[in-house]
Amino acid sequence: MPEKTSTFTLEKTVTALWEKKRFGSLRDLLATLQPVQIAGLLEGLPEETRPILFRLLSKEAAAETFVEMDAELQEALIRGLTDKELKAIVDEISMDDAADLVEEMPANVVHRILQQATPEARRTINELLRYPEDSAGSIMTTEFVGLKPSDTVAEAIALIRRTGNERETVNTCYVIDSGRKLIGVASLRAILRADDSALIETVMQSRVISVSTLDDQELVAHTLQEYNFDALPVVDAENRLVGIVTVDDAIDVLEDETSEDIAKMAAITPGDKPYLRTSVFDIWKNRIPWLLLLMLSATFTGIIISRFEDALSVCLALTAFIPMLMDTGGNAGSQASATIIRSLSLNEIDFSDLPRVLWKELRVSVLCGGMLAVCTFAKALLFDRETVAVASVVSLTLIITVIIAKLVGCSLPILAKKIKIDPVVMASPFITTIVDALSLLVYFTFASRILGI
Amino acid sequence: MPEKTSTFTLEKTVTALWEKKRFGSLRDLLATLQPVQIAGLLEGLPEETRPILFRLLSKEAAAETFVEMDAELQEALIRGLTDKELKAIVDEISMDDAADLVEEMPANVVHRILQQATPEARRTINELLRYPEDSAGSIMTTEFVGLKPSDTVAEAIALIRRTGNERETVNTCYVIDSGRKLIGVASLRAILRADDSALIETVMQSRVISVSTLDDQELVAHTLQEYNFDALPVVDAENRLVGIVTVDDAIDVLEDETSEDIAKMAAITPGDKPYLRTSVFDIWKNRIPWLLLLMLSATFTGIIISRFEDALSVCLALTAFIPMLMDTGGNAGSQASATIIRSLSLNEIDFSDLPRVLWKELRVSVLCGGMLAVCTFAKALLFDRETVAVASVVSLTLIITVIIAKLVGCSLPILAKKIKIDPVVMASPFITTIVDALSLLVYFTFASRILGI
Repeated sequence: MPEKTSTFTLEKTVTALWEKKRFGSLRDLLATLQPVQIAGLLEGLPEETRPILFRLLSKEAAAETFVEMDAELQEALIRGLTDKELKAIVDEISMDDAADLVEEMPANVVHRILQQATPEARRTINELLRYPEDSAGSIMTTEFVGLKPSDTVAEAIALIRRTGNERETVNTCYVIDSGRKLIGVASLRAILRADDSALIETVMQSRVISVSTLDDQELVAHTLQEYNFDALPVVDAENRLVGIVTVDDAIDVLEDETSEDIAKMAAITPGDKPYLRTSVFDIWKNRIPWLLLLMLSATFTGIIISRFEDALSVCLALTAFIPMLMDTGGNAGSQASATIIRSLSLNEIDFSDLPRVLWKELRVSVLCGGMLAVCTFAKALLFDRETVAVASVVSLTLIITVIIAKLVGCSLPILAKKIKIDPVVMASPFITTIVDALSLLVYFTFASRILGI
Repeated sequence: MPEKTSTFTLEKTVTALWEKKRFGSLRDLLATLQPVQIAGLLEGLPEETRPILFRLLSKEAAAETFVEMDAELQEALIRGLTDKELKAIVDEISMDDAADLVEEMPANVVHRILQQATPEARRTINELLRYPEDSAGSIMTTEFVGLKPSDTVAEAIALIRRTGNERETVNTCYVIDSGRKLIGVASLRAILRADDSALIETVMQSRVISVSTLDDQELVAHTLQEYNFDALPVVDAENRLVGIVTVDDAIDVLEDETSEDIAKMAAITPGDKPYLRTSVFDIWKNRIPWLLLLMLSATFTGIIISRFEDALSVCLALTAFIPMLMDTGGNAGSQASATIIRSLSLNEIDFSDLPRVLWKELRVSVLCGGMLAVCTFAKALLFDRETVAVASVVSLTLIITVIIAKLVGCSLPILAKKIKIDPVVMASPFITTIVDALSLLVYFTFASRILGI
């Protein structure tokens, strides 16, 4: 990453300037950086230098940098700032960022923050905090451009020029009636193109795609992505406009969702901190319950083997094929489950598609299983020098295992979603454990029928 | 999904109106829909009705709907349109969409499209096609607002009002000198806020984050996400501005990347079509090579077992623990590899962090392995009624297996990235196969030492 390298050498420069007390040059240097770069820089510096460096930033840059820091750094910095400096930040950051801050800080810091906020800001923050976690209401911002249908284009442009600086986006403006009900959207582009005297109600589109405050944030993000909008209006139960969700917040929601899905697919409870900053104990806590659970289920496979110990002792060669059968079944199953889990989360398929999915996976599994079985049969005969009977048992088991694995792998995520369980839980480790047991049962059944043991 | 349900009932309404030949009402109905909804609707209708329905759309809506369709539908529709209708679409869609179209259509359709494009558009399309796949150049659009530093704010606003409608975004404008070199960016917000007579060079920011035409599209998307921009300028080797990438394209890149990563993690060659529209043969082709490869590696595990057949025949109880040891090792390894793969793709860690990662995973694995070993020891003694010696062999193997699994799982993705292999390939199936073999070797070593067999 180019940024990482540049921040790295930057740190040295900043430290050098700092040691020489060249604060003027430091201020000039910081003014050339993006907020996210300054936040990264502050993180790498000793705690006592941070407030001083922070004071070298312009009011606007300070607020933007503050928002880019993580909670720990914010807390440490707030402790080093005066009330007046804190107020400057609280006044400058957007309401959704302020609400996030209040949610993450310990009680005494929250008290200081709310003391510095204006009564109006305090009210907005408290309202935002009332929405359930991960809802549209909890990620929206209340700073949108609201127009009246009777405004002229000239009036609208004047309003945007006056207040646009405090809004999250000016690309799309929202038209509300006297009861604050959302009646239309007008893109800035359409407004700019229209005549000065035209009324906003003639410029706006009256079909509006909106979400409700209680909708899940993932639905909001996917809707934004689907329609290629740069913001989505959020309305309450009476269709009153209460906020907007912008596309940059939607990207973060989608990326967090991906991280969570990947963690769950690998049987880990998702954490909320970057890996290197998660403590060993927390990592352990996120992983060990799943390992225990899966180990417990794997013992069923052990019980099946114990029950067939006699068969194995008669034909020890069968034991050598167990890992290959288990691994292939597990892999075939996770291929199907991963594909279906992703299609479910992209809303490409739903419960009504189950028969089509099963039919498709059945055909794929016959093709895959057939090819693997032929290879295994040849290898068992020619390379392992097994008898035709043993080779047949192994290849027949393999084809049945692959079919079972694919059918179980594709249907469990769909069924899970139907009964409101996160389909991602039905990923590789879970499928593997089920398929292991089933494939061993098939194996020993074929062994006793064909080999007569 | 609400959209899905509404499209579903919509189809019935449209079919009914169609059968009654109520084209006026159909036109009015279509005018209330979003392009992506119309595209979904057309997909569900019989092929011969599509061009006629398409003609009921306004020129602008027709172009936007066209862009939302997938390649097959586009091709079928183009065949049903006259040259004049095709020209209307080609004139209206943006240059990056036109380039995508040319890339995806068969030669005779491409010929028709290029015939309808203006000579200037043809040149731009050809230039866009020259950039490598998945590069910034291949996803950028050439339709940005370009300002001169000597423009006044009033002139800039007039330019935006005149041409903004054809630009991908007006939120951010780009300032270029007479040699087309990128020298600054000016947000529309900053322009609107400034005095009419102010010069753009006083309004613009001269520190610009840009990407090069040859940069990977994932880097572009991550940079956009990191800086919360709504567009990124793309420059050539001489810092001349050649295009911009907007955030809606970045979201699509990130989501495609996620789909690809999830596929690779489950040992599937990523496909580019939605699951239900991929043929059985294509699904088979994407999955079978990996199953064959992994089956081949799993036979090494079989070879190890064969070599220790004598030990197993002396103490058959050992066989029953093999699946549990293999599964637990596999799960512990995939937990580590999935975590590290995700951190790598979020650029949270790089090669220099390897020692820290190893040290962290070592401690986590001792904690996890220790706890699993204690449970297994107790269960083997009390539930399975094994001897202390056998219980010790199993639990000691388990703790070593978990440690090996975590260390292999965390280091292979980092090493893969270092030697420019996609770290995602080092996910669950691959790690499982390696860990299986190692854990069996450990198992039989302990067995021969402790049990003396």
